[in-house]
Amino acid sequence: MVSASGGPAVVALGGGHGLYASLSALRGVTDRLAAVVTVADDGGSSGRLRRELGVLPPGDLRMALAALCGDDEWGQTWRDVVQHRFRSQGELHDHAVGNLLIVALWELLGGDSGGSGPAPGATVAGLDWVGRLLGAQGRVLPMASVPLDIVAEVRGADPSRPHEVTRVKGQVACAKTPGTVLSVSLVPGDPPACPEALAAVEDADWVVFGPGSWFTSVLPHLQVPELARALVATRARRIVALNLAPQPGETDDFSPQTHLEVLQAHAPDLRVDVVLADRGVVDDPVALEKAVGDLGGRLVLADVAADDGSPRHDPARLAQAFVKIFRD
Amino acid sequence: MVSASGGPAVVALGGGHGLYASLSALRGVTDRLAAVVTVADDGGSSGRLRRELGVLPPGDLRMALAALCGDDEWGQTWRDVVQHRFRSQGELHDHAVGNLLIVALWELLGGDSGGSGPAPGATVAGLDWVGRLLGAQGRVLPMASVPLDIVAEVRGADPSRPHEVTRVKGQVACAKTPGTVLSVSLVPGDPPACPEALAAVEDADWVVFGPGSWFTSVLPHLQVPELARALVATRARRIVALNLAPQPGETDDFSPQTHLEVLQAHAPDLRVDVVLADRGVVDDPVALEKAVGDLGGRLVLADVAADDGSPRHDPARLAQAFVKIFRD
Repeated sequence: MVSASGGPAVVALGGGHGLYASLSALRGVTDRLAAVVTVADDGGSSGRLRRELGVLPPGDLRMALAALCGDDEWGQTWRDVVQHRFRSQGELHDHAVGNLLIVALWELLGGDSGGSGPAPGATVAGLDWVGRLLGAQGRVLPMASVPLDIVAEVRGADPSRPHEVTRVKGQVACAKTPGTVLSVSLVPGDPPACPEALAAVEDADWVVFGPGSWFTSVLPHLQVPELARALVATRARRIVALNLAPQPGETDDFSPQTHLEVLQAHAPDLRVDVVLADRGVVDDPVALEKAVGDLGGRLVLADVAADDGSPRHDPARLAQAFVKIFRD
Repeated sequence: MVSASGGPAVVALGGGHGLYASLSALRGVTDRLAAVVTVADDGGSSGRLRRELGVLPPGDLRMALAALCGDDEWGQTWRDVVQHRFRSQGELHDHAVGNLLIVALWELLGGDSGGSGPAPGATVAGLDWVGRLLGAQGRVLPMASVPLDIVAEVRGADPSRPHEVTRVKGQVACAKTPGTVLSVSLVPGDPPACPEALAAVEDADWVVFGPGSWFTSVLPHLQVPELARALVATRARRIVALNLAPQPGETDDFSPQTHLEVLQAHAPDLRVDVVLADRGVVDDPVALEKAVGDLGGRLVLADVAADDGSPRHDPARLAQAFVKIFRD
């Protein structure tokens, strides 16, 4: 792992396991790190919490915080607590403890919000408290201040009508559709962005998109209009870290360049400075070079996959790749 | 509040609001403080957790930890989180966040115990971690290592048969019975005591019984045979802090001396050095002096009630009373 001392101001965008991977790498590269996290999950523990308590789905935020935990016994113990899930035949089954903790802090700091979501300020303050608990190296912010739903245009959502394009609503449904996702949008369509996230993007030296579930974790940020404008306007350089494998359901049969074309379709004004791809997953370097060029950037190929054959990034290798990109 | 620096080694026994009161006072008097807490609750959040996850009921432990929290912003914020209860129409309703946190630590530190309760060592280690989170001044220990049930002999549990003595099982049922509780015992009848609690009693300078729900929070400790033997054998001096008012259900119409007679009936070998009672609630000082003398102790009368007319102890006044007792 690369040691961090200072380093550039970096904002990583995403959600779930992809963001966990980028943060696990970036925490070794800089200590000026912020994660801007999707808040559109409607499944599992997060989905139940947003339905029961009217709060932002906390799961992706929790996982990002866990990725940034201090590496002493204190930080690692509380990370394990935060990531712990109850297993039972009862009402707590599958709830992640950190989700409950985050929501409790939102309720406590926000006062009685009458089920209309956390009070302004309480969202970020609550996340900062969990960050302090974990000794987190960096800050975790939501991409919007209200819970969101993802709506996807999907071709062949009904396998018996493979050419029909329909709308699929909800992150879980979009991620699992047997059809081909063509585009995503959000409900509500113009949600308030998180002010601290906008400021972090504005002040960043680098902004990192991906890796992660393309339609449900990476692209949603560009569908929050205020945040999309900030991402276009920032003087920060922009990196797209491509996935190691297509995601069943969401991006079956997507080549690396297809990922970039979809990104461009969702944010036509966005320029990209660097596209980072694992050397082993690029079948057609020429086509990818062209797609990268269309976005205004350069392609960096590196060995960033884990050795175990899984489609996971190796944190140390990904960190090395970021170091090289930031330096060049 | 009296400032603490060093001070005698004090063990406070009880549960619920009564123990919260004694700890709130004692934390200002000594920094060598341990609470030994009942684990027989079967109601509310604790009852649901023991049924769903097979763990010790955490609620009384949580409340004792909260009473010991650090008095800086960190300690008070986490105390508020730990004490926070979810309110909803759904599955999380009424769960206290600290209960969930304690149980998560037990599961995490104990490994997979297959629902047979926390692994040895994990119980105390988990409580110590929450104590560290809160910056707690003192230690919180369970009175036994397995979940317990209280069984009471009750006269008139069925109001239509006011003279019949029947058995009532469960802390909630015992606390709420319309009849008169005559005695309590535990199921299982010879539970393993918590080794750290035994050591704390052995090493104490003072042991404090009460205030608290007499049959369901104070006397159960004396029904754990190992712990009862330690409480009889310890060289520590023993204080009984009497309640300010009879408790509806459990101790209707009980005079202060009746409380002592019941204590003696449950632990015939136990000698008591000091009985502390609020001056305002003693109707018959002669009878109380006699009951105290029968236990081998002296009566201390003091003004320890809050000014607001509620049957609550004032922490600062209770602390002053303890200081005087420890000094004399």
